Amino acid sequence: MNGLRVIGAVVALLACAAGAHGAEVLSSWREGAARSAILDFVQRTTDPASPDFVPPLERVAVLDHDGTLWPEQPVSAPLRFAVDRIRAEAPQHPEWYRRDPYRSLLKDDSHLGQLGDRELMQLLLAAHAGLTPEAFAQQVQQWLAGARHPRFGRPYIDLVYQPMRELVQLLEDRGYRVFIHASGGADFLRAFVERVWGLPRERVIGNQVVLELQMRDGRADLVRSARLHWSDQAAGKPATVEHILGRRPVIVVANSDQDEALMNWAAAGRGPRLVLRLLHDDPGRDYESRARRTSPAWQPVSMKNDWLVLFAPP
Amino acid sequence: MNGLRVIGAVVALLACAAGAHGAEVLSSWREGAARSAILDFVQRTTDPASPDFVPPLERVAVLDHDGTLWPEQPVSAPLRFAVDRIRAEAPQHPEWYRRDPYRSLLKDDSHLGQLGDRELMQLLLAAHAGLTPEAFAQQVQQWLAGARHPRFGRPYIDLVYQPMRELVQLLEDRGYRVFIHASGGADFLRAFVERVWGLPRERVIGNQVVLELQMRDGRADLVRSARLHWSDQAAGKPATVEHILGRRPVIVVANSDQDEALMNWAAAGRGPRLVLRLLHDDPGRDYESRARRTSPAWQPVSMKNDWLVLFAPP
Repeated sequence: MNGLRVIGAVVALLACAAGAHGAEVLSSWREGAARSAILDFVQRTTDPASPDFVPPLERVAVLDHDGTLWPEQPVSAPLRFAVDRIRAEAPQHPEWYRRDPYRSLLKDDSHLGQLGDRELMQLLLAAHAGLTPEAFAQQVQQWLAGARHPRFGRPYIDLVYQPMRELVQLLEDRGYRVFIHASGGADFLRAFVERVWGLPRERVIGNQVVLELQMRDGRADLVRSARLHWSDQAAGKPATVEHILGRRPVIVVANSDQDEALMNWAAAGRGPRLVLRLLHDDPGRDYESRARRTSPAWQPVSMKNDWLVLFAPP
Repeated sequence: MNGLRVIGAVVALLACAAGAHGAEVLSSWREGAARSAILDFVQRTTDPASPDFVPPLERVAVLDHDGTLWPEQPVSAPLRFAVDRIRAEAPQHPEWYRRDPYRSLLKDDSHLGQLGDRELMQLLLAAHAGLTPEAFAQQVQQWLAGARHPRFGRPYIDLVYQPMRELVQLLEDRGYRVFIHASGGADFLRAFVERVWGLPRERVIGNQVVLELQMRDGRADLVRSARLHWSDQAAGKPATVEHILGRRPVIVVANSDQDEALMNWAAAGRGPRLVLRLLHDDPGRDYESRARRTSPAWQPVSMKNDWLVLFAPP
């Protein structure tokens, strides 16, 4: 595949040129340990003369989605979407008014944050059963157009963290393939990942529902069931990433306790690894989180100290 | 992500230039309906002025592996590899000599082709349980270095169909992302997909085993179990492809009856679709197969009439 290799090399050169002559990279990041660690790592792993050089085919980064690339408090977007859909569809499902968790949810959804993992999953699955993937994506897009975040009063997709946008841009420019891990379900993010992130849908990894193949009017379609096909919460995340990518990521960026297995597994790989842990330590600008464990193998990123801005201006 | 888009556009231009000025495309394909259908489709879907233009983010092709990109007769390579490993490891597993399917296999493996799907899967799973993905990949590479195809007497990776190599090259040059569907297990192909196809490992889709996360000496590793994590035989293939890609492929290339659900599901998508069915109709140069069903939605590719050569010269 020499043609491919030649084109790959040209792309790498162009990307370097863009990095050198374009706008300053990571411009929303304050000078400091986190920004330096990123720039140094990217330089070392993409310079063919460096002992830490990583060949382009192996340059894979996995970034967690909710809480890492945008806020996940007070309720994550995929969960808010599911609850809004349940409320909208409830009149067609009178049985929901007699069965928990629907019953208490339809009365008052202010306790959403206290639901257990199993109840949350049941809600997420039931809310969208029966839809084709195409119809599900349309529902997500419609919801995103109207929904506003309760604290920031802006559309959810305006709340992508600007420093993370710049990080993704830098990595893609330098030949890394960025994958986003969406615990709230891959399909939710896939409905807008092209528009918001400029990445193809296969770059999204996450929970999946069982899909059933149906023939309707001689036409083959897949339809969402209410059963989970695979789940990759917490300790299951390394296996999901290996299943999809066939390797340990070179770079992992995450924020929560649920991501620690993924962070440790990636860090244990041979060769250079960069594991960033985003700390939600800035209650003035975002929600605070107690997920603050450290490890010598992780580079902390302080929202408060390392980020000049959180969001792009309205 | 304007920087990404600019680079994408430059890559597309370079790819066009390479196509125009480089060696003739599809040079191992005889002039005819199949070759014309491919060239016409690629032209229509990559020309921004065409009504059939497919945006780069949506350009996804799925090619079946065994039987489509190389021979799968008399026994597919992943199965031959599993059996060779079982024979090599049998002395450490005296119980295998008393239990079928191992027992009859260890006595005489000439009946391999007659094993049922369930027995085959059991063999494939059991043969590699306990290995890390990294160790498994090494075993595959060692096996490939020594194994020879029983009819052609050449290493398996020398038996990649040359016309398919040219097709993959053409598609990648024109901005299609080629995914390979390996029913014999994604990890087998992933062990050599970079070297043989120049494609990153995440471009391989297929059966997966359950992976268990183990801590050894404070180090997190995944280990293969003998259980299937997900299976995508026959009617399950569309769901696997949707799970991984988040869309119907624009192009599908396949050969067997087991691929028909995938072919029909892809063909039923809105917009332009190209579904190629490779016919094994050339017993003089390869094995013959009775999988010959046609559909107006599929373009047949005759090994006998459409391909000038099968393999690159030794």
